[in-house]
Amino acid sequence: MIKKVSREINVKQVKISDPFWSKRQELIIDTVIPYQEKILDDKVEGVEKSHAFANFRIAAGLEEGEFFGMVFQDSDVAKWLEAVAYSLCIKPDADLEKRADEIIEIIAKAQQPDGYLNTYFTIKEPEKRWQNLHEGHELYCAGHMMEAAAAYYKATGKDKLINVMERMADYIEKYFVTEKREGIPGHQEIEIGLMKLYHVTGKEKFLKLALHFINERGKDPEFFIRETQKRGYIHGDIKDPYNTKYNQNYAPVREQKTAEGHSVRLVYMCTAMADLAAATNDKELLKACELIWENIVSKRMYITGGIGSNAEGESFTIDYDLPNDSVYAETCASIGLVFFAREMLDVCPSNKYSDVMELTLYNGVLGGMQLDGRRFFYVNPLEVNPEISGKLFGFKHVLPERPGWYQCAC
Amino acid sequence: MIKKVSREINVKQVKISDPFWSKRQELIIDTVIPYQEKILDDKVEGVEKSHAFANFRIAAGLEEGEFFGMVFQDSDVAKWLEAVAYSLCIKPDADLEKRADEIIEIIAKAQQPDGYLNTYFTIKEPEKRWQNLHEGHELYCAGHMMEAAAAYYKATGKDKLINVMERMADYIEKYFVTEKREGIPGHQEIEIGLMKLYHVTGKEKFLKLALHFINERGKDPEFFIRETQKRGYIHGDIKDPYNTKYNQNYAPVREQKTAEGHSVRLVYMCTAMADLAAATNDKELLKACELIWENIVSKRMYITGGIGSNAEGESFTIDYDLPNDSVYAETCASIGLVFFAREMLDVCPSNKYSDVMELTLYNGVLGGMQLDGRRFFYVNPLEVNPEISGKLFGFKHVLPERPGWYQCAC
Repeated sequence: MIKKVSREINVKQVKISDPFWSKRQELIIDTVIPYQEKILDDKVEGVEKSHAFANFRIAAGLEEGEFFGMVFQDSDVAKWLEAVAYSLCIKPDADLEKRADEIIEIIAKAQQPDGYLNTYFTIKEPEKRWQNLHEGHELYCAGHMMEAAAAYYKATGKDKLINVMERMADYIEKYFVTEKREGIPGHQEIEIGLMKLYHVTGKEKFLKLALHFINERGKDPEFFIRETQKRGYIHGDIKDPYNTKYNQNYAPVREQKTAEGHSVRLVYMCTAMADLAAATNDKELLKACELIWENIVSKRMYITGGIGSNAEGESFTIDYDLPNDSVYAETCASIGLVFFAREMLDVCPSNKYSDVMELTLYNGVLGGMQLDGRRFFYVNPLEVNPEISGKLFGFKHVLPERPGWYQCAC
Repeated sequence: MIKKVSREINVKQVKISDPFWSKRQELIIDTVIPYQEKILDDKVEGVEKSHAFANFRIAAGLEEGEFFGMVFQDSDVAKWLEAVAYSLCIKPDADLEKRADEIIEIIAKAQQPDGYLNTYFTIKEPEKRWQNLHEGHELYCAGHMMEAAAAYYKATGKDKLINVMERMADYIEKYFVTEKREGIPGHQEIEIGLMKLYHVTGKEKFLKLALHFINERGKDPEFFIRETQKRGYIHGDIKDPYNTKYNQNYAPVREQKTAEGHSVRLVYMCTAMADLAAATNDKELLKACELIWENIVSKRMYITGGIGSNAEGESFTIDYDLPNDSVYAETCASIGLVFFAREMLDVCPSNKYSDVMELTLYNGVLGGMQLDGRRFFYVNPLEVNPEISGKLFGFKHVLPERPGWYQCAC
């Protein structure tokens, strides 16, 4: 019997007094969250334009304008709201909560009558909903907003956002399961979001929907190819539908044994898989998690907990290919690795998970943000030559210093 | 007084009996030259199409068809003819000479009434002659054909090709000097070609024209920018006219102190500069050669004599940036370094030039060709991982094995 050893911990009941981490907490609460709020509302000069709040206001009909940003721009708002929720648990802040409530009000208004929520496809290409699961990130954005909704509900008891996202989940279930449409997400995340909804609400339908997407993955390696051909256009991301390893649908997930393809997607998928393995007592699913974990930490992870060494597609390559200077190792991949470690630790309380979690938190994750909380690394180099990094062929993606924000801030 | 220490050596009077190099000579004569002849005439299956001979037949009006290949495809024929000339000095071959004569006959027919010779611009864009010195390679192709003409004249005493190229040189002089049009070559080489014509014919006008292009270079760093703006189109090469360092026109050549930009262009330029320095007793010109030489061999050269570490633009980067795996170090850059060394050695008989010449011949140059003379490296890696080289981002240009031919075989 696979069983989680830890019970869900109420963040409100945890106080970190460690001088190192409590400072990081303070920084996030006092500086990073308000700073990012301003960025998302386009009130910071000299950084990449976000437009993420504005997109929601436009989709909600509160403002005129065009969509701006990445196709997954909505997820920046979701991640910010999730951080706000945790922040409110640690340090209640009526004013911040009020502002978050206002954003949530706008999000609710941006939801379509059928439950659909996504500002890109609502504003810009309403006729193209669900036609590009490969690149469109609709399920990805939904997953992050579900995570935010669950966290905000736990933090405040307010159910506005979780109601929105339950409706979105029901709509997704109807569209893909009830109405039997094939489809898996190009970027895994919906599975995590649904599991968060499941844990908060206890409603099994969310677990089942998460399991549906996990089970569908790799059943038909041709899905993205067929989808691309049927659709006949791309969203500019130019991901290769033929690269089934990159897309992690080369085999059913229970048969996958190595860390392949896009690194964030892989660890997000594994996070949900480990959670589902425990929730459904699925030994096969857990076994795949263990094999992929071993492959990552023994052969495809930097000493910093960085993963995904390849700048082309922010992806895993081959065993032991871990260049220090042309590295990718994006911060969110390390964050995802911590999520994966956390789920594995819950199922199997071994230091092999907690050690990697700690290693990664202190290095791959923490290095992504400057000490003042105002500048960030997307790519985390282990070796920088200021005359080469960010400038020359093969190293243009390796910025020698942290910028203030990114056009793609995921 | 700058003076060359060696007299021009007649290749016919040199016999190499060294068991290592005589085998390479035999290979070139018996295998490589006939093999490449077939490739240039599109008679080898399974390698990149050349069409170089066909371009000349079409331009000569002997055949119907379209131009095919790089804008500088003509230079492949010139280099082959030059090799044939040297080959005939070592091992007379009436049949090969007859075939070369036939090609030369076609080249002569492809020359335009005014002396102009270039199959790309004759067949494809006759109205665009000399409008894109930056990328068009007309002067580059002319330079290589002048080298071939001089070599073939010395080898056979036949003056057909040298007469053609003297006419082309006169036409270039009229166009740029007499008629006072601004312009420098995007890819240096005409300077070497003109010096070869000068040495063979003794006609000073060719030396003066070579010196003209050397003197013009860097006088006006804006030339390529202005040319690009005036022209309003590119030839697909997408070289940056604003990158004056890359284009080696950031300063007058006598003020250049480091090896910058495209590696082959730099060593070709320096080869002509050293030759001109001796021919005109120009100490300033020689000093620039010495400084650039020192920068190359002490800070910007691989242990193999490979130069130009950057795949983007096959160019020099910064001191000591010599990665083994993402290397460029194209074979022709090493060949150009040998030319430069040879000229420096002639002016200043020091082992510092001959040692680098030897090092480069045995490594960077020799490694470019497989032992059987039928496969070639364009990029010369010092470290290859067959699972990474040629496949992954940053290494796609580093082929782990030598192909049979290249679309760009320069």
